[in-house]
Amino acid sequence: METMGRHVIAELWDCEFDKINDVNFIERTFVEAALKSGAEVREVAFHKFAPQGVSGVVIISESHLTIHSFPEHGYASIDVYTCGDLDPTIAAKYIADALGSKTREMTEIPRGMGPVRASKPLVTANA
Amino acid sequence: METMGRHVIAELWDCEFDKINDVNFIERTFVEAALKSGAEVREVAFHKFAPQGVSGVVIISESHLTIHSFPEHGYASIDVYTCGDLDPTIAAKYIADALGSKTREMTEIPRGMGPVRASKPLVTANA
Repeated sequence: METMGRHVIAELWDCEFDKINDVNFIERTFVEAALKSGAEVREVAFHKFAPQGVSGVVIISESHLTIHSFPEHGYASIDVYTCGDLDPTIAAKYIADALGSKTREMTEIPRGMGPVRASKPLVTANA
Repeated sequence: METMGRHVIAELWDCEFDKINDVNFIERTFVEAALKSGAEVREVAFHKFAPQGVSGVVIISESHLTIHSFPEHGYASIDVYTCGDLDPTIAAKYIADALGSKTREMTEIPRGMGPVRASKPLVTANA
């Protein structure tokens, strides 16, 4: 399997309190987001915090989706990391819409591109 | 709970094949890494792939630790995300050492810093 992957970091603000505080809704949304991306779901683990907030993960054959929600701040912190030919932005956008986020910032980070090694300079000066 | 968090992305290369292909060793290492950081473990889910490779997560009260390993490439893709006063670099370094990584790149990304909003320009030109 190739190491290359795409990791979307989604900072979702102005989300709906009731949605990002509902562990069952979030779990369903995340599994659905994974399936819509064409991913194969392997493990699902979600946790509800008291008095509020949800953390959880869907492990897919192609990496993972995670959430940490802070309903009192309208904030949900999302990661969607996919390997292979999958497009992580499909799941990230599906989740952002489902959680009712009105302010969203998404950043994509390449993963597994290979170690940075000291390389020969492209241009050398003659002494 | 405050939304601010620190997310370390660790690209671990030149890891030991047997270590990054051993789901039990990886699970123990990740739980230990979480505890060494002072985190509270909430959920643990790890998956072994055939013919090789491990994916998994430790959900902590303060966010999460994840891994995806590619033993045939000596590569392990790690995320350590912590909220509160925890230092994610403690767990990231512990994991990198435990997996025998000889080439490692770590990048820290701030999370939950607040939405970017259009602000008034600091300097305005008079017409």
